[in-house]
Amino acid sequence: MFNKKSILDEIIQNVKAIKENNPMAGSITNSVTINFVANAQLAVGGAAAMVYLPDEAEFIAKVGKATYINLGTLLPIYDETLSHVGKVLYENNKQWVLDPVAIGIGSLRSKILKEYKKYKPTIIKGNASEIIALAGLWGLEGGVGTSNVRGVDSTDAVNDAKDAAISIARFTNGAVVVTGVTDLVTDGKLLAYSYGGSHFMEKITGAGCSLGGVLAVYATYADPFIASLTGVSVYNLAACIAEKKANGPGSFYVQFIDELYKLTGEEIANNKFDLIKL
Amino acid sequence: MFNKKSILDEIIQNVKAIKENNPMAGSITNSVTINFVANAQLAVGGAAAMVYLPDEAEFIAKVGKATYINLGTLLPIYDETLSHVGKVLYENNKQWVLDPVAIGIGSLRSKILKEYKKYKPTIIKGNASEIIALAGLWGLEGGVGTSNVRGVDSTDAVNDAKDAAISIARFTNGAVVVTGVTDLVTDGKLLAYSYGGSHFMEKITGAGCSLGGVLAVYATYADPFIASLTGVSVYNLAACIAEKKANGPGSFYVQFIDELYKLTGEEIANNKFDLIKL
Amino acid sequence: MFNKKSILDEIIQNVKAIKENNPMAGSITNSVTINFVANAQLAVGGAAAMVYLPDEAEFIAKVGKATYINLGTLLPIYDETLSHVGKVLYENNKQWVLDPVAIGIGSLRSKILKEYKKYKPTIIKGNASEIIALAGLWGLEGGVGTSNVRGVDSTDAVNDAKDAAISIARFTNGAVVVTGVTDLVTDGKLLAYSYGGSHFMEKITGAGCSLGGVLAVYATYADPFIASLTGVSVYNLAACIAEKKANGPGSFYVQFIDELYKLTGEEIANNKFDLIKL
Repeated sequence: MFNKKSILDEIIQNVKAIKENNPMAGSITNSVTINFVANAQLAVGGAAAMVYLPDEAEFIAKVGKATYINLGTLLPIYDETLSHVGKVLYENNKQWVLDPVAIGIGSLRSKILKEYKKYKPTIIKGNASEIIALAGLWGLEGGVGTSNVRGVDSTDAVNDAKDAAISIARFTNGAVVVTGVTDLVTDGKLLAYSYGGSHFMEKITGAGCSLGGVLAVYATYADPFIASLTGVSVYNLAACIAEKKANGPGSFYVQFIDELYKLTGEEIANNKFDLIKL
Repeated sequence: MFNKKSILDEIIQNVKAIKENNPMAGSITNSVTINFVANAQLAVGGAAAMVYLPDEAEFIAKVGKATYINLGTLLPIYDETLSHVGKVLYENNKQWVLDPVAIGIGSLRSKILKEYKKYKPTIIKGNASEIIALAGLWGLEGGVGTSNVRGVDSTDAVNDAKDAAISIARFTNGAVVVTGVTDLVTDGKLLAYSYGGSHFMEKITGAGCSLGGVLAVYATYADPFIASLTGVSVYNLAACIAEKKANGPGSFYVQFIDELYKLTGEEIANNKFDLIKL
Repeated sequence: MFNKKSILDEIIQNVKAIKENNPMAGSITNSVTINFVANAQLAVGGAAAMVYLPDEAEFIAKVGKATYINLGTLLPIYDETLSHVGKVLYENNKQWVLDPVAIGIGSLRSKILKEYKKYKPTIIKGNASEIIALAGLWGLEGGVGTSNVRGVDSTDAVNDAKDAAISIARFTNGAVVVTGVTDLVTDGKLLAYSYGGSHFMEKITGAGCSLGGVLAVYATYADPFIASLTGVSVYNLAACIAEKKANGPGSFYVQFIDELYKLTGEEIANNKFDLIKL
């Protein structure tokens, strides 16, 4: 049995804990949106640290309670760094968020994503195409060998990735977030749909990447499902409010960061979501 | 003979096609302004994908209708990636935009730019100093062996690069854009001067780089000359409007992105330009 | 003897010289905040150029009057580049600013920072933890072997680093800036406390990094102490004004860049600071 009231309380407590304790969640992330990731992490109350080298990644992974790995813009050193840090995170029972962005492009990304199956990321976040492709890569139910992956855009609807998300979450014993017009969060036992957002989120680069970094911040104080639901709720609510104050994607970004900073745990918990027992 | 009315129509159609079809134009670009490039591409209606590795660059180059190559901040892997992707783009008859930023600094940049002569970039964009230096490097008329290149700043006036721009465009059978107070666009047959802009464009980093990314987006649906004229027109008009609403370079950037998003094809086509048959 | 009036005049003259002459201060800096560094340098009147490769770093170091080295996100090539550029800067008697960010994390960063002892950076900027750790690494008074370094955050108060700052400045014959709620600047002969700032400076990524880039700009026309005092003064004043106009860290950043651009030499010199003869 689940209790929506207790989930609301956990979201509120999580947001408060982050704002009070300013936890660091390190990242290995792409260069396009690395600044947005750090600013979003800071805005919600966390601290950021980005690295590229293997020994620095190990340090960050061990010191932090949670880490964010985004495969956006791979560099040669990532071959060593990402493989090593995945192992470190797994062996140290750390929370970590994987964003399998651009899955299917290039040989290094595929190699790392295949290897990450054994390191079981505690939260995986992607659009429908990416989640379906990852389930396919890992040979899990709901996945297909090839998806309509086109850079960072999703061409599949969120619910098309529902089976893939559930099978991945049950395999990792973690949570999966599928982003789209409505966001889907599941840990294989519960499934939530989170509402809100803004059409401007697709007109600024890094909305998805920075959500990944924020999920890692929330994962420093909550289990994967609560951390994920907190993250998508604050994103959906902040985007919805920001859109009303914006005249275009430039001003939307500014308002969005301001809202991430201002929203309270109560406001975030009250953002609309549906909860289903699987 | 040319017909200004038909050129206006082509600009309008180009802008509409981009907003409707959301085409992806991949980039290999510098880390300073990579976020601005992506956000500008998204704002005008395109999609962005940035890569560093050779096989990923090949993928992006083949999948996209146009690609943007900016030589701003070179990394060791660029030696392989940029050489390879130039060949792929040329052999696949793809549109691509070259920004020879910082030409003259370092041996790798010179090596790649020399090699790119044979791959004939379909659009080349630079300030006057860069275009003159590139013509010099390629042994074309209007070029000189050394130019007053100083990082990303131009020390020559746009018209000083007119001969170099024309000779490059005739050699590549593409278009050349020379940015400055007034921008010059030529394909060796027509030459346009585009007016507008803002003094704030020199006070934000990436105005030139992001224009290059936007030119690649427009090149997915138009020939090099129309794509270039569309790009400089939207930049000149958006900057002019943004300046009126700005209190400094911080707010100018925000307003500029908003305007890139809001401007219609008709508004862009109506931005002042002079057209000359060569 | 020192004369506060003459120091005020030097600050005013420095700010004016930068705005009139637009000097370039090249950087080797981290990818998280590289855009902020460049935009801050441009806003105060300088010009920016960022590089990664050894020969490009040498070019930038020799051409510029001052250079900024930030150790934020190291890449493998930095092993060669940072070692080489430190030597070039020292042998050419150039002004240069070192930001020993994240000192203590990873072996490459420690190796480079140890080596930089012999190249004597003319300005060193860090939070209290970083300055104490650097003095420790260099075996200077006021330093300790290990500090509570946690990514980019400071866990020590500014005055705890006073002895370390003075001993480093006397060793390098340059200036040291310790950032915190109140900033400390010393060249080993004079010590200044600069007041102002904003709590939002810790909620945006890159406040410290971009200050480093701005210090390099000011160092192109002033000695290390005046350059440092000018830099922290403009930062403290701009942040204080920006906070009043901001609704969160997103709008704070925009206002902050606008203020960096607008503030005059007189306004900057009038920002409160205390001056002590050591």
